[in-house]
Amino acid sequence: MDLLKVDSIDDAVRKLKKCCGAGFAATELAGLETAAGRVLAENIISAEDIPPYRRSAVDGYAVRSRDVGAAGDMIPTMLKITGEIAAGQDPGDTTVDKGCCVYVSTGSAVPEGADAVVMVEYCESFGGNMLAVSKAASPGEHVVRAGEDMQKGDVILQKGRKLRAQDIGVLAALGITVIPVFRPWDITIISTGDELVRPDETPGPGQIRDINSYTINARSISEGFNVLRIVVLRDERNHIIDALADASAGSDVVVISGGSSKGFKDMTAELIGEVADSGVLTHGIAAKPGKPTITGFDSKSGTIYLGLPGHPAAALMVYEQILIRLWRDLTRQEDDLTVKARITANIPSAPGRRTFQLIRFRDEEMTEAEPVIAKSGMISPMSIADGYFEMSENREGVKAGDIVEIRLWR
Amino acid sequence: MDLLKVDSIDDAVRKLKKCCGAGFAATELAGLETAAGRVLAENIISAEDIPPYRRSAVDGYAVRSRDVGAAGDMIPTMLKITGEIAAGQDPGDTTVDKGCCVYVSTGSAVPEGADAVVMVEYCESFGGNMLAVSKAASPGEHVVRAGEDMQKGDVILQKGRKLRAQDIGVLAALGITVIPVFRPWDITIISTGDELVRPDETPGPGQIRDINSYTINARSISEGFNVLRIVVLRDERNHIIDALADASAGSDVVVISGGSSKGFKDMTAELIGEVADSGVLTHGIAAKPGKPTITGFDSKSGTIYLGLPGHPAAALMVYEQILIRLWRDLTRQEDDLTVKARITANIPSAPGRRTFQLIRFRDEEMTEAEPVIAKSGMISPMSIADGYFEMSENREGVKAGDIVEIRLWR
Repeated sequence: MDLLKVDSIDDAVRKLKKCCGAGFAATELAGLETAAGRVLAENIISAEDIPPYRRSAVDGYAVRSRDVGAAGDMIPTMLKITGEIAAGQDPGDTTVDKGCCVYVSTGSAVPEGADAVVMVEYCESFGGNMLAVSKAASPGEHVVRAGEDMQKGDVILQKGRKLRAQDIGVLAALGITVIPVFRPWDITIISTGDELVRPDETPGPGQIRDINSYTINARSISEGFNVLRIVVLRDERNHIIDALADASAGSDVVVISGGSSKGFKDMTAELIGEVADSGVLTHGIAAKPGKPTITGFDSKSGTIYLGLPGHPAAALMVYEQILIRLWRDLTRQEDDLTVKARITANIPSAPGRRTFQLIRFRDEEMTEAEPVIAKSGMISPMSIADGYFEMSENREGVKAGDIVEIRLWR
Repeated sequence: MDLLKVDSIDDAVRKLKKCCGAGFAATELAGLETAAGRVLAENIISAEDIPPYRRSAVDGYAVRSRDVGAAGDMIPTMLKITGEIAAGQDPGDTTVDKGCCVYVSTGSAVPEGADAVVMVEYCESFGGNMLAVSKAASPGEHVVRAGEDMQKGDVILQKGRKLRAQDIGVLAALGITVIPVFRPWDITIISTGDELVRPDETPGPGQIRDINSYTINARSISEGFNVLRIVVLRDERNHIIDALADASAGSDVVVISGGSSKGFKDMTAELIGEVADSGVLTHGIAAKPGKPTITGFDSKSGTIYLGLPGHPAAALMVYEQILIRLWRDLTRQEDDLTVKARITANIPSAPGRRTFQLIRFRDEEMTEAEPVIAKSGMISPMSIADGYFEMSENREGVKAGDIVEIRLWR
């Protein structure tokens, strides 16, 4: 493969992106119960102040802070209890006058006049409606101002956020129960290879179990994609071309992996060129692993074709670097957080190619990264690894002791 | 709440763990297509060598390395091509004799006699069956030994592993298509509170939207649990006791949150004490946030009861620290990896309580952690945070510039 003809990963992603219309960042609505893990398709702006009223953060007594400024363990301040506001109760025109206090629960509205709440632990009631307060309160203490948590008009969650349980809580608090999210891509996975047998079969001499169907399926699911179908085929031109064409109808992306027999890699490109009206976009990428990667686009059906290398670790890495990167780019997701760690050995890079090096951490604190050495085609290293780092096309490699930026495997 | 009577988080988890029988670490079988994200319930031991035979890692020619020891760009070595082994083809009794070579594809068996493969890029065939090799090969080059990837009898994946796409690939390679995984817990979520309204309702004065049902549901799902039912109730003793008793029949865990009205926290404990034959195990934990936490166990039905604080951020943290910790402990999961970062401000801790401080990173490399300040009951801080760190019961707090160990929010 001629290095002058291959694309950089960035170029390969850019070419695909140029082809993707609005359908690749289409939105749909999700309910609060099912929105976790989905990607937000619009900024979420608060339509109200949260809390909507001044709220007590504790069980206690709403007071005027000046009244209890001198209160202490030894000399408590006596106040008159003039009311109680339960959680869920409208405070109405209850006010706290000088020398008085009102019982409030956690979540209760703090009545007019009061500017602080003393926790119930520091209060003792005497003779019915008299209260001994043994702790001073500063203005605002244990009171959450209206809008202090979330203010009307503020952007609370940004488009592109992958929603976690915490974010679901924010949406519930804002009363947003129908949530605009990006529609996940529909994926068809095609694995080809005369040497492939099903995982539950025992490979004969020269045969190998189909792995890519399962790893690409699992990674697709963990990213939130819908896997429509997995098709496993021999290296037969007509069958493959039929499968590619069939899949384009309902799929956003058709992933084809394998075909490591002689000349087949070129056949994949030829077949993609045949079914995709925009033809082959990228034929080989300057990456290690991942060189034999092919992309194409069919504008009639709006389908991305992605031909992955046959080696499982390479196939998964290319899927991550091309397709998942494109998805995250189009759906405005933030980059994953990375970890800086010290590499424990010298690692060469492949000249002119972006090189991905698997690592495992030596320590729980992720400060020492040990390279996981994988011969081409080996499978266990990807499972042993905690993550990987990239060496750019122009970098000559790293030396033991260098600090590298680790991306964690998901 | 008397600090002398409350449990440490460790004690609360330990007490629950003592009650949990085998049913809380029960196993079931998953298929390869659905096993990603599940927790492995047994060690996976390779029953065979992977690869099962010496395999070529590239497309090229299988050679005797001594024959091409002097091969180079300027003076290629000429070999005789005596055969071809396609991927999937039994090599039979093909051998590579002195001065000869055999074409192999990626994944092909390397025939007897050969000890290296020269990549096709460095070979040119002349006159039918003569090959010019322009690169020397070292013994073993581009050959993966039988068992070099995974060796028969080795533990390849350990019990407790949360299966990622990479691990699914390893299982497929080993021919393990029916996978022993831990049965996820069945959870019933009960939210109570007179002040609660549905998220799609507009809260009246003193009312608040139900948040905990949705965050606990989302966090349960992201951990892999089955949420059977979400029940929202007023603070009415009989309704709650019926719901608690009903839920015990089919649930491993009944989570009850809320009840922030006066005296209700004690009512939750009383009600759990009534329905759970082993009674209340923990009544209050020495944690901030999270003090008003209640646990109980019913041995008849084998049900854990967990009473969470009403505040959403506290409820979610306690759910994480008690229930998810217990699940991970019982299913032998490894601790999450943590990140060491420099804290940017002084943070006090609550004396005698384990204190959880939310943080956000200032940089993508996660080296500078800025505290996210949350007043009690505020919701947005948990969503703003990237993670949190713990201060132990005996620690007085941290100073700006201290290195703390961050757990990343999921």
